[in-house]
Amino acid sequence: MIDGHTTLIAHIGYPTHSFKAPLIYNPYFGQAGINAVVVPMGCQPPDYPALLKALFALSNIGGALITMPHKVSTVALLGEASVAVKIAGACNAVRRDAGGRLIGDLFDGEGFVRALRTKGFDLGGAACLVVGSGGVGSAIAASLAAAGVKRLVLTDTRKDTTEALAARIRLHYPGFDVAVGGNDPAGFDLVVNATPLGMEEGDPLPVDVSRMSSHALAGEVVMRTEITPFLAAARERGCAIQVGTDMLFEQIPAYLEFFGFPITTAAVLRGLARLPQSA
Amino acid sequence: MIDGHTTLIAHIGYPTHSFKAPLIYNPYFGQAGINAVVVPMGCQPPDYPALLKALFALSNIGGALITMPHKVSTVALLGEASVAVKIAGACNAVRRDAGGRLIGDLFDGEGFVRALRTKGFDLGGAACLVVGSGGVGSAIAASLAAAGVKRLVLTDTRKDTTEALAARIRLHYPGFDVAVGGNDPAGFDLVVNATPLGMEEGDPLPVDVSRMSSHALAGEVVMRTEITPFLAAARERGCAIQVGTDMLFEQIPAYLEFFGFPITTAAVLRGLARLPQSA
Repeated sequence: MIDGHTTLIAHIGYPTHSFKAPLIYNPYFGQAGINAVVVPMGCQPPDYPALLKALFALSNIGGALITMPHKVSTVALLGEASVAVKIAGACNAVRRDAGGRLIGDLFDGEGFVRALRTKGFDLGGAACLVVGSGGVGSAIAASLAAAGVKRLVLTDTRKDTTEALAARIRLHYPGFDVAVGGNDPAGFDLVVNATPLGMEEGDPLPVDVSRMSSHALAGEVVMRTEITPFLAAARERGCAIQVGTDMLFEQIPAYLEFFGFPITTAAVLRGLARLPQSA
Repeated sequence: MIDGHTTLIAHIGYPTHSFKAPLIYNPYFGQAGINAVVVPMGCQPPDYPALLKALFALSNIGGALITMPHKVSTVALLGEASVAVKIAGACNAVRRDAGGRLIGDLFDGEGFVRALRTKGFDLGGAACLVVGSGGVGSAIAASLAAAGVKRLVLTDTRKDTTEALAARIRLHYPGFDVAVGGNDPAGFDLVVNATPLGMEEGDPLPVDVSRMSSHALAGEVVMRTEITPFLAAARERGCAIQVGTDMLFEQIPAYLEFFGFPITTAAVLRGLARLPQSA
């Protein structure tokens, strides 16, 4: 029940119609007895800097969840950016510190890596191929580097973008084994589709799945369908899989910790288990 | 359930702790199947103009409820002000028109007058005394003038403020019988306490109730206790009474109509009947 003591979490993007966060966080807040609410705010790019500033002047602001089309433009508005934000050049969570500075982080990659850990995946020993160097691919690459995987190869048709991403990772993780390569999945322990391939009927697969090791894990970012053609082919081959929404749900505890809410992962997961599938 | 289609009604003031509107409107929206949410926003005066502008640039903004300390400063930010706003010099409701202009209205007085009508009070024949020419007294005076009462007398220790209020009423309602006078309630059909007297233990009464006609109605704006000493004394004398929260609850349909929600008074009142008393 929203009242005069409620903390506001602004969920900012445009358009808002497909927003899922209010459906995920608000029932959790209700169940956990946290007096906070996630509220969608449809904001177009020219209006965004002034909105962010005005919201973070509110006495009851708890933070902001940032989504398209503001994830990149947010970076320039921060007082302090996490390493993930600096590497990916994007931000999806903003809070205010005690001094009023805006602190930004990016939890897409963190959610992806937490989901791998939940599955017992051996990150420290893993050779990883991330296909796609856009926003979500950059975030996942940054978090795999932070998690200390054995080796990371990035591939994308946009060679310059990918080289620049690798350079930013090397800058923040000196000595880490990161390279730009092709999209042959042979020899990798983790193969991530971080491209939009799989969103549309008839899309080609992001890699030649017949070249994947059967002990590899296939990770997906596409959420439109749970089992994308890439995941279906990998599963057929005997691979473990990680669906797109795992990344989304495993971000939740990271977000809540960032915003300073009392939280345990177990409590979140108990809460989520009660959510409707549509969330 | 808040989702990506939810309309935002910002409830702006500072501090927010005593806000009641979310407790009133949100259960009503839920019951009436209206996908909208009233969200408290604690905003200090220097930050207010930028906040209002940023909020009304949102694609899903439905309007704003404005409370202290912004009711007066809002007037200068409007593109169009109602007569009640112009007379009272205060605004408690803002919406955006199709062209993007901010439209402001003030519903305190409207709520007070609607509550009188609900009681079957004969407004057209009434001589009315309003004690207190501050924000709420001005709003009630403006709405009594709009309702066409027979005669209106304003009284306050601040003589200049009261004269200025009477002059604004005359400007907007030429020929209307409004005067500044003393606080003797004798001969009035309606006596309104629009002062804070009654909020604190031991406050004096706003008028000498022994001089009130027993057929008069005593109206109150103080909400801290339902039956204030003024109302208790008037009731003792045989007068009809109107409690402070009547003004609040009778504003609700006016607000909802202003924001463009499909609404009937009957539906609102059915919804309110289910509210906890604390709301």
